[in-house]
Amino acid sequence: MLTFVGLGLYDERSITRRGREAVTAAEAVFAEFYTSKLAGATVADIEAAHGVDVEVRDRAGVEQDPDPILGAAREGEAAFLVAGDPMISTTHVDLRLRAHERGIETRVIHGTTAQTAASSLTGLQNYRFGKATTLPFESAHGTEGVPDSVTDTVEENRERGLHTLAFLDIKVDDDRERYMSAAHATALLADHWDEDALGVVVARAGSPDPVVVVDRLRALAEESFGDPLHLLVLPGTLHHVERDALVELAGAPVELADERLV
Amino acid sequence: MLTFVGLGLYDERSITRRGREAVTAAEAVFAEFYTSKLAGATVADIEAAHGVDVEVRDRAGVEQDPDPILGAAREGEAAFLVAGDPMISTTHVDLRLRAHERGIETRVIHGTTAQTAASSLTGLQNYRFGKATTLPFESAHGTEGVPDSVTDTVEENRERGLHTLAFLDIKVDDDRERYMSAAHATALLADHWDEDALGVVVARAGSPDPVVVVDRLRALAEESFGDPLHLLVLPGTLHHVERDALVELAGAPVELADERLV
Repeated sequence: MLTFVGLGLYDERSITRRGREAVTAAEAVFAEFYTSKLAGATVADIEAAHGVDVEVRDRAGVEQDPDPILGAAREGEAAFLVAGDPMISTTHVDLRLRAHERGIETRVIHGTTAQTAASSLTGLQNYRFGKATTLPFESAHGTEGVPDSVTDTVEENRERGLHTLAFLDIKVDDDRERYMSAAHATALLADHWDEDALGVVVARAGSPDPVVVVDRLRALAEESFGDPLHLLVLPGTLHHVERDALVELAGAPVELADERLV
Repeated sequence: MLTFVGLGLYDERSITRRGREAVTAAEAVFAEFYTSKLAGATVADIEAAHGVDVEVRDRAGVEQDPDPILGAAREGEAAFLVAGDPMISTTHVDLRLRAHERGIETRVIHGTTAQTAASSLTGLQNYRFGKATTLPFESAHGTEGVPDSVTDTVEENRERGLHTLAFLDIKVDDDRERYMSAAHATALLADHWDEDALGVVVARAGSPDPVVVVDRLRALAEESFGDPLHLLVLPGTLHHVERDALVELAGAPVELADERLV
């Protein structure tokens, strides 16, 4: 049995009780942190919290050499740990398909996600979000600034009055990790798209001290939001309770929020 | 302090460790189950699992008479439990705003959600979902069949190649609860919209035995998917791994899945 376990949003306490039971019951525990990682816990923290040894696999160690994982799952109980919810990334679906092909049973234990938190912490209603997007580092794509695919998604959503969640890029090269900050992201969008657009920054979702800040992109680009991870929401129109939540709970300038009210 | 705690998707083991800590540390524990409920646990199960007494409030007891909750939160640690993630519903945001107005500190502990599970269990990628919708019981709206707002959402998403998650209606009247089944939902959509459209049924997400079934709406309308809760996904176009996941993991008819491949 191969059990995909979502570690949830932030640290070793973000896992569900069901997830924890699967981890402690597993004979072999694997993890990957190349698609996402826990900002508030190291691998040692996870090992200590559950009393297990965790074998971290890099992308090649999952996609090109999955045999150690599949072998353990064929012979007994194996758990595969992923930050957030498992199966969010193609690489996990692909591993599940490979297990299935070899007749290995699989199951999925869900985790809390940035997508849920972006709605929950901002007060923006989940059914008023359109397609999500990811804002890449400039080095990750050929063109300068912001790829059209990102701004097209935001604009198509806005035409329908919908909010857009923008995941911010994570780069893992050898042992170096870079997280795009919300200040970086809003500067990119202010320079190459619309500096007057309303932005909602969410920092450290799932942690004990998440931060939500609302302002025009140009103003957000000049602030600093502390440790990763950061998310950015680009709101469409605002319903009354959404407007109140942004103003009262996240300090949105009243006139900015009122401009968007329907 | 008023802590909103997401109970997660299915039963008393769907809560996170951080959520459990908040529940056991609270001096007063409230809950509401009118916006959503745990299909796999009773209130007694939750009380037993955490060793606490839970006071369940109905809609009037939250929206019109929040004083007992706010009073407890002003005097000490109060927890407010909600199935899935808290703040998903306007009623929770409204309660948080009322606490804030009175100078009561609030925090949010996230839970796993149907939205995450719909993507995770089906292998359909989360960034390829458009706006979500809710399919209401016929008695809940004036017209026969399916409201235009639902089919408009599905069609606008499809034009962009995007998937649509349809939440299925829950009716709580006095002590009676009715959950719309996926068979009911697909019959409605087959009769009043497009019987040949592809549908993906997800039953009992978050439980140990979730079920995912893919077929044309007309065919799904003739099946039975067991206990609630059920969700329905109406896919847009399919990427290769999405197609493989629907065929290999959910038994989608190959020719149906291939029609949608991009």
